[in-house]
Amino acid sequence: MNDGDPVSPSRRELLSLPLTATALGLLVPAVAKAAVGDPLPSWNDSRSKAAILDFVARVTKEGGPDFVAPDDRIAVFDNDGTLWSEQPAYFQFFFALARVKELYPEHPEWENQQPFAAAIAGDLKTLAETGTKGMLTLVMASHAGMTTEAFARIVVDWVTTAKHPRFNRLFTDLVYQPMLETLALLRQNGFKTYIVSGGGIEFMRPWTEKVYGIPPEQVIGSSIKTKFEIKDGKPELMRLPEIDFVDDGPGKPVGIYKFIGRRPIFAAGNSDGDLQMLQWVTGGAGPRFGMIVHHTDEKREWGYDRQSSVGKLDKALDAATDAKWTLVDMKWDWRRIYPFEG
Amino acid sequence: MNDGDPVSPSRRELLSLPLTATALGLLVPAVAKAAVGDPLPSWNDSRSKAAILDFVARVTKEGGPDFVAPDDRIAVFDNDGTLWSEQPAYFQFFFALARVKELYPEHPEWENQQPFAAAIAGDLKTLAETGTKGMLTLVMASHAGMTTEAFARIVVDWVTTAKHPRFNRLFTDLVYQPMLETLALLRQNGFKTYIVSGGGIEFMRPWTEKVYGIPPEQVIGSSIKTKFEIKDGKPELMRLPEIDFVDDGPGKPVGIYKFIGRRPIFAAGNSDGDLQMLQWVTGGAGPRFGMIVHHTDEKREWGYDRQSSVGKLDKALDAATDAKWTLVDMKWDWRRIYPFEG
Repeated sequence: MNDGDPVSPSRRELLSLPLTATALGLLVPAVAKAAVGDPLPSWNDSRSKAAILDFVARVTKEGGPDFVAPDDRIAVFDNDGTLWSEQPAYFQFFFALARVKELYPEHPEWENQQPFAAAIAGDLKTLAETGTKGMLTLVMASHAGMTTEAFARIVVDWVTTAKHPRFNRLFTDLVYQPMLETLALLRQNGFKTYIVSGGGIEFMRPWTEKVYGIPPEQVIGSSIKTKFEIKDGKPELMRLPEIDFVDDGPGKPVGIYKFIGRRPIFAAGNSDGDLQMLQWVTGGAGPRFGMIVHHTDEKREWGYDRQSSVGKLDKALDAATDAKWTLVDMKWDWRRIYPFEG
Repeated sequence: MNDGDPVSPSRRELLSLPLTATALGLLVPAVAKAAVGDPLPSWNDSRSKAAILDFVARVTKEGGPDFVAPDDRIAVFDNDGTLWSEQPAYFQFFFALARVKELYPEHPEWENQQPFAAAIAGDLKTLAETGTKGMLTLVMASHAGMTTEAFARIVVDWVTTAKHPRFNRLFTDLVYQPMLETLALLRQNGFKTYIVSGGGIEFMRPWTEKVYGIPPEQVIGSSIKTKFEIKDGKPELMRLPEIDFVDDGPGKPVGIYKFIGRRPIFAAGNSDGDLQMLQWVTGGAGPRFGMIVHHTDEKREWGYDRQSSVGKLDKALDAATDAKWTLVDMKWDWRRIYPFEG
C-alpha cells in the first residue's frame, strides 16, 4: 500500500528477491545461537574478543562503576572494510561503473571524456589515476537526475544481481560474519547500532536493514543534494549532481553529531578515514571502546594497510596503541570471515 | 560517568532541575490515563479527534486494507506553533536575545550596530524590521564559537530558567497538551515520532526527550556548521558562524529524507513553512495523514493566520481542503491547551 514511498517498495523487493539467500541462511542461526551460548562464535578466543565481551559486560552492569544508561549506548560502524570488503575497489565504485555503462547510450560524448571512457572500457588502471575527482565525476553523472525513489530501485536492482569479480557472489555476501555477530551482541545489550560511512548514504540505505539489521534512519553517509519538486502533479525529491556532505575523516564526527546529537561510546573502523571518528568517540569521559579492523588475511580476504590506495591504514594504526583501541587481526582473530564459509 | 559527552550531562541536569515540574505533573497522568480510557482526553469530541483515532485504527489493523508495517509508521511534527506556542515571537528568538545581552560586555561595538543595538535595548519593533537577516545575524553571533557540549549547557541553563513574558512560566510549559497526547497515542501504536522544525536543531535536542518524549536523534532542524578540532588535547566539535541547513519550506522534505531515508505517513504543521512537508508526506500512496493546527483561540492562546509575521498560515490553509488535511481548530477542538491549565 506504500507504492509511492521511496524506500518501502525497495525493501519489499528485497524481501522477495534472492538477495540474501546466503547471508540469511547463516546470519539467522548465528544470531539465534548467540542468544544461548557464545555470542561471538566466529571470533577466536583472542584478546580482541575478550575486550568486546568485557566492555559490553561493564557498561550493562547496573550499579557498576561503568554502567551506561541504555539511551546512551550508541555504537557506530564504518562500512567499507569494517562491515564488508572493499577490495579490489569500493563496491560502490562497481555500482558507478555499471551505471555509467547503462547510461552510455544516452551520452555518446563520454567516448572521448575521462573518466567516462575508462569506465566504459573497464580500464581500472586509468580510472584509478583520475583519483577522487574521477570517482566524484562518475558518481555525479550516474547517481543524480532521478527521484530518490527511482534511485533506491536502481540500487536494489544492482545489489540483488551484480557479482563480485573474485568470489562471483553478490557483494552483500561479502560481509564479515564476526562483525554481524558483534552488531547483534551490542543490540541484544541495548545498543543502538549505526553505520557511519564515506560511502553514499542512499547507496546503503535500501539494503542495510536486511543485511546488517540497521534501518535506513541509522545510516549516515556521504550525500548529494536533493530538491523538492512537484513532478507531473506528484511531490517528489529529485537528486542533484551536487555534493551535500562528505562523511569521511573529520566529517565523520560532524556527521555523527548532526544525525544523532550525542557522542557514541563505541566506534569501529578500519582506515585513516575513521581516525577522527575514533578519536572523538573514545575521547569522551567514561567507558569507551575503539576498534580497528586490520586487514591481515591476504588468503581468505585481502592483506593491506599503510600503502593501500583503498582503505589506507597508517595514521590510525599508529594512533591505536596510545589510544588503547582494540586492533583486530583478521587472520588470527576471526575463525570465519564470510557467512558463506562452511 | 559521561561527563565528556556533549548531551548527557545536560540531560542529567534536566532530570534534577525543576524544568518540568508543571509539565511532568500533568503529562504523566495524562499518558497513564491514555492507556486505559480515552487516549485523547484534552481533545473535544470533534471531527479532528475522530480522524486521528480512525487513522491510527486503520494503519494498525493487521490484515486490513490500510495496514502499515511498524517500521513504516513514521510521524513528523513541526515544533513552533504545532507542539508549543510561537508568540509573540519564536521562543528561540528570546533565547538569542538573552545570549546577545550576555555576550554584550565582550562586544562593545554592538552598541552602534543593528540588529545588536535593538536586541540589547529590547526594541522588538526595530528588531522585527531587520527581518530574517537580522535574526540570522543574531543567531550566528550568539550560537557559535563554542563546543557543541558547551552550547547544550547554555541551552539547558536558559530553558530551565527563562520565563515567557505573557504567562510568566518556563517556555517549555507552553506545550500543547492535546499534541502531547497525540504523540503518546502514536507511539503506543508503534509509530516513531520526529520533530521537523525550522528552529535550531541543537536548540531543541537538549530538552525534547524530557518534554515531548522525542530523543535527540529524532529531532531534525536548521543547523550551523561544526568542525572537528583537537582542543587542549581533547577532541571536540566547534560550532561555526556559518549556515549548514535551513529546515523550512521545501527544505523540510529534504531534511526528512536526509535524516530518515523514508517517507513518513503522518505529518503535522501549522504554517506555510510546513506546506511542502505536508504535500510530500501525504503525496505518497496508501494511508496518509496531514494535520494543520489553526491558531483560532486568541483568548487561551493566540489568534493568527494569513497576516501573521510569525507562523503565517496562508497557502497551506488554502491547500488543506483539496488535500483533505485535518484542520485543527484550537478554540473548538481543544478542551485544554496547556498542561498547566486546571
